[in-house]
Amino acid sequence: MCPSPLPPLALTMGEPAGIGGEIAAGAWAALRATGPAFFLIDDATRLAGAPIRRIAAPEEALAAFPEALPVLHRPLPHPARPGQLDPANAPAVIAAIDEAVALAKAGRAAGVVTNPIQKSALYAAGFAHPGHTEYLAEIAGTGRPPVMLLACPELRVVPVTIHEPLRQAIARLTPALIIEVAQLTAAGLRQDFGIAAPRLAIAGLNPHAGEDGTIGTEDRDIVAPAVAALRAEGIDARGPIPPDTMFTAKARPGYDVALGLYHDQALIPIKTLDMAGGVNVTLGLSIVRTSPDHGTALDIAGRGLADPGSLVAAIRLAAEIALHRRNASR
Amino acid sequence: MCPSPLPPLALTMGEPAGIGGEIAAGAWAALRATGPAFFLIDDATRLAGAPIRRIAAPEEALAAFPEALPVLHRPLPHPARPGQLDPANAPAVIAAIDEAVALAKAGRAAGVVTNPIQKSALYAAGFAHPGHTEYLAEIAGTGRPPVMLLACPELRVVPVTIHEPLRQAIARLTPALIIEVAQLTAAGLRQDFGIAAPRLAIAGLNPHAGEDGTIGTEDRDIVAPAVAALRAEGIDARGPIPPDTMFTAKARPGYDVALGLYHDQALIPIKTLDMAGGVNVTLGLSIVRTSPDHGTALDIAGRGLADPGSLVAAIRLAAEIALHRRNASR
Repeated sequence: MCPSPLPPLALTMGEPAGIGGEIAAGAWAALRATGPAFFLIDDATRLAGAPIRRIAAPEEALAAFPEALPVLHRPLPHPARPGQLDPANAPAVIAAIDEAVALAKAGRAAGVVTNPIQKSALYAAGFAHPGHTEYLAEIAGTGRPPVMLLACPELRVVPVTIHEPLRQAIARLTPALIIEVAQLTAAGLRQDFGIAAPRLAIAGLNPHAGEDGTIGTEDRDIVAPAVAALRAEGIDARGPIPPDTMFTAKARPGYDVALGLYHDQALIPIKTLDMAGGVNVTLGLSIVRTSPDHGTALDIAGRGLADPGSLVAAIRLAAEIALHRRNASR
Repeated sequence: MCPSPLPPLALTMGEPAGIGGEIAAGAWAALRATGPAFFLIDDATRLAGAPIRRIAAPEEALAAFPEALPVLHRPLPHPARPGQLDPANAPAVIAAIDEAVALAKAGRAAGVVTNPIQKSALYAAGFAHPGHTEYLAEIAGTGRPPVMLLACPELRVVPVTIHEPLRQAIARLTPALIIEVAQLTAAGLRQDFGIAAPRLAIAGLNPHAGEDGTIGTEDRDIVAPAVAALRAEGIDARGPIPPDTMFTAKARPGYDVALGLYHDQALIPIKTLDMAGGVNVTLGLSIVRTSPDHGTALDIAGRGLADPGSLVAAIRLAAEIALHRRNASR
């Protein structure tokens, strides 16, 4: 492993009844020889599948990483049991996120990679956020809303609206909303991906992007004006693009990121292409944050079946983003 | 080429300013040695790219096919010019569809494969249908609405609603509509694809299929009751399935067809996977009908750039369906 120019990445425990511990061990095995180095914030006694090295501080992680998975040991109040949610452990799950963010803010971690959480277990313990991303926006935000970007080797997508009913997502669609998300996306691709002039493809809402208003009016009256405004401010945006043809193998090389107007318009194509290697990136935070694009997988936890591929990709991408940010700030 | 147990397939000219003629020649080159044999209903004088054999009747096509593209010569009133729409030719475009259907009904063609049409050119000539499929339903229907199925090697999809604004498609969604399309789809897979007990995956409408009513109520109140009713009548249906994970490589082998509730929910995943080889099949007609899943491609017509892959797949699938129907009727 080459000497790293970056501090190690912080990986959170996520839901301790899920697959977070096993995929952390798998990711360490995949990355121990090459990096990027990371440390896990977790209860060291529950971990298996890799040699463990308890560390007292993140600064010890780089030296330990080639030989063992470095762990900042944070004991759980109850023993974690695969597949069995236990709200008593929820405060420790949240504390691991808080600590990772604090270390990243202090420059002692290059960024934060989050293992999946189980929202229902956290709600029972008083967690009041729709998910990870919204919580991170509160503790590491920049005053603008965070943007969720999903990346796999073939495609990057951003949903303009996320976890809301489709009917409501359509009703809430305005030029201003599309413009704001597109601006944040363009800024994120410049800062975090090193793309100087990102090309944005913006999907239409209706079949065939409305065929000039004959199949619904939103494409003509909401999406097209947003694209025109973005172009007027120098952002290389195109659209509204017929949703069904914008994700084909021929179309994908024509843009750096595709904006879907609703959750599944963005998530269907990327998950159709790539389940195991997809990465979730939050743009617009003060820190670097990525995560695998799957859930806690309670149904297979503890059985050695979990695929660490998405977590490995998330760790690699977090390091790339951290490098882009460091180089940009020099 | 093995002796065919079927009559030849009829291929329509489609929009003469588009790529129909070139891809017909390309498909003949791809299939001349193996079949299935087909003949083209078109103006023989406009065709290039393959040796042409004018035939007087479909019955001559099988013998001619290994040596030349068999053509039932139907002169166009105006010379076709690539990329230049000419409404004067619209009646000939429609007449080719009518003749193909009549030959299929008479058992002189095994089925109809339609080249893409340009609706705007036909509307100017008085054509009053939203598209090919609706026109075919009128001249070759069975009293129930036709169902559009798209197939590629990895996936089959059926959109429950098609060319209507997304907002309207949601408003129009009822258990009865989903049940009707699912019944026709199941019957089509049995009759046309030889799948005795087809497995139907029915998508949810909202992100994560609504998470038990917390993200929109349609999944709980409309989709779930439709699935229950289908199962009660013995159809192997599952759903509502979270739309973003139902098209992954892991999920696809679990069903024979996926029903999307709106146009792009069905068409995005299949076009993401496969542009050139996708086939459009109309279930619920009295005749066999397939078509390539692309348009007239006026922008590249006449330049030798068009890919005949989807038309080749459409011709092959039409022959397979015709064989299934013949075997089922014995």
